[in-house]
Amino acid sequence: MTSANKQTSPAPGALILIPVALGEAPWQDFLPATVQHRAAGIRHFVVETARAARAHLKQLDFPSVLRDTDIRELAADADQTALDTLLAPALAGEDVGLMSDAGCPAVADPGARLVARAHEIGLKVVPQVGPSSILLALMGSGLNGQSFAFHGYLPVEEAPRDKQLRALEAESQHLQRTQIFIETPYRNERLFAALLRVCQPRTRLTVARDLTTADEYLHTRSIADWRHTPTPALAKRPALFLLLG
Amino acid sequence: MTSANKQTSPAPGALILIPVALGEAPWQDFLPATVQHRAAGIRHFVVETARAARAHLKQLDFPSVLRDTDIRELAADADQTALDTLLAPALAGEDVGLMSDAGCPAVADPGARLVARAHEIGLKVVPQVGPSSILLALMGSGLNGQSFAFHGYLPVEEAPRDKQLRALEAESQHLQRTQIFIETPYRNERLFAALLRVCQPRTRLTVARDLTTADEYLHTRSIADWRHTPTPALAKRPALFLLLG
Repeated sequence: MTSANKQTSPAPGALILIPVALGEAPWQDFLPATVQHRAAGIRHFVVETARAARAHLKQLDFPSVLRDTDIRELAADADQTALDTLLAPALAGEDVGLMSDAGCPAVADPGARLVARAHEIGLKVVPQVGPSSILLALMGSGLNGQSFAFHGYLPVEEAPRDKQLRALEAESQHLQRTQIFIETPYRNERLFAALLRVCQPRTRLTVARDLTTADEYLHTRSIADWRHTPTPALAKRPALFLLLG
Repeated sequence: MTSANKQTSPAPGALILIPVALGEAPWQDFLPATVQHRAAGIRHFVVETARAARAHLKQLDFPSVLRDTDIRELAADADQTALDTLLAPALAGEDVGLMSDAGCPAVADPGARLVARAHEIGLKVVPQVGPSSILLALMGSGLNGQSFAFHGYLPVEEAPRDKQLRALEAESQHLQRTQIFIETPYRNERLFAALLRVCQPRTRLTVARDLTTADEYLHTRSIADWRHTPTPALAKRPALFLLLG
């Protein structure tokens, strides 16, 4: 923090939310030039994982020596004091960038707590345009984009997971709401098999994998059609599942 | 459609989902260069409103004479034959671009029916990265980004609208789910007043207005704090509301 002389204290910086790549690609494929330029001017980053953040900054043609860039991880259990320490450069007049390990920060990751604290202490929060696998999958699904819900991860155990799949399908049919969920990549194939076993034949299922990369796979079929389609390769690859009953 | 000679029929084109601006801004602010380049190569567009689409293409530095570009509106009641006519250029080997009046196509607009039909007839669907006011507002809200639902428009009449606000708030509290909704711009102020009247003091409310433009306004406060804050200017301006109880 700078000295608390009111006459010289600078205008506060902002918390800038910087999306990062979903996979291997030049930044021109997934980030507006203005966002790359803005990110390149930031010296203080709060990130999910420091190692992933350094790789993302290199992918952005980050102009500075990363050794001289302040990159700090946001602990899952960070308390208010820890959050305030991470935001201190903004109070001292310098922008702080928030990055996730993939896609848009504060969506499907723990970053929202830092954003919430920034609002509480009156900092400006500036979300930047970039890739979100959730949004891209929804756009490309052809399922209802006027009512949708993201549920994150489903239960790991088979019985409660199948029960929730049935509940999501029933709610989806009742409200015409697209249900979006994800799985730990090494369990994708198990979830896909469960969907084919548990859901109604007419329910539509979208499988979206490796979005924005050369291996992008994005198909919507009825459960009946999926049962007669070769199983897509899903093991250990980032994927989303969307259904509409 | 080209002649049905199998030996000379070209590989099918794709349905390319092209996001457009949320407001006045150079395209470098909101679109990756690769997306602009890809859009500039498309000669067949399916759009929400032709006039808005022409303005968006001009904003994209579209290189062709718009008079020579095939721009067709997607009717809200388009039947299967009409959808197939719109997709015919793709079957004949040329990409078709889908654009909304603002933001990402097939999200909070009627475009999903065309995407669904493209999947049914086996066309490749390629969503492109660009601005979504829903996603930007969620990122910037600091509310829960690991569970959220988009509800579109709430009822217009006061009694059912207030009832739904209470139901959304209760569900939000129960599931820790961020609730996202929109309003016709000239009714924004009425909805904001209703939120302050109906919701619990500790519920957090985000108001996101004019995102990605110079007039961007994005604040999250408790209902109690909003009651003591000057009312933001919301009349006739695009806004989103997010709450977490």
